[in-house]
Amino acid sequence: MPSIFSKILSKEIPGHFVAESDEFFAILDINPLAKGHVLVIPKIEIDYIFDLEPEILSEYLVFSKKVAKAIEKVIPCERIGVSVIGLEVPHAHIHLVPINSISDLDFSRPKLSLSTEEFEDIRVKIANAF
Amino acid sequence: MPSIFSKILSKEIPGHFVAESDEFFAILDINPLAKGHVLVIPKIEIDYIFDLEPEILSEYLVFSKKVAKAIEKVIPCERIGVSVIGLEVPHAHIHLVPINSISDLDFSRPKLSLSTEEFEDIRVKIANAF
Repeated sequence: MPSIFSKILSKEIPGHFVAESDEFFAILDINPLAKGHVLVIPKIEIDYIFDLEPEILSEYLVFSKKVAKAIEKVIPCERIGVSVIGLEVPHAHIHLVPINSISDLDFSRPKLSLSTEEFEDIRVKIANAF
Repeated sequence: MPSIFSKILSKEIPGHFVAESDEFFAILDINPLAKGHVLVIPKIEIDYIFDLEPEILSEYLVFSKKVAKAIEKVIPCERIGVSVIGLEVPHAHIHLVPINSISDLDFSRPKLSLSTEEFEDIRVKIANAF
């Protein structure tokens, strides 16, 4: 069965797309640690990031950098933190999170509740900056 | 002034080296979240990971994968988590942390205190597996 991310990619279920390339796509995390929290996901459905082939891995941070720079342009923050945990959805994904302190990247913190309008506002801003 | 990581690379101060390539080196984190917590560091001293040039970024996860696979061989864990915070040492570094749950990647948790012998034992095991 396809992962939730593959279903979002195929438009079977909705997602807040901010960027896309041949190999990757980027969507807003729907349980964000901060406004502008984005997931960068390889289109190929591989569970564990370190099982990705070098051909994909070599493009992963290059694409993520472009997304991070777009986030930085529109979300005030010290920098973009990076996290890969991978114990929930079995489809590799890099979290890009705007941070100002170490605790901003703590996934045990309560997540933000954003309205559909807030998600769309952030999505459009990042997509336009990309 | 060179960063603490550049000083470790130049052997001005000691480090627990587990792997090295032309562009990167990997050392044990001296304040580890878990046994086998490794830092993968570009030899070029750039503060922010997303200011690295694509030529370096494209090799970063490829090299980190090799290190992660070596850690996995010798440290029992579910998988290797990845984190980049970058608010303390102004020299980009990827944390590779053996994890079994999301909270294992929470940097606000108390760090392990390991003896010199324990660090060296882990270092040798990972270096040999690399």
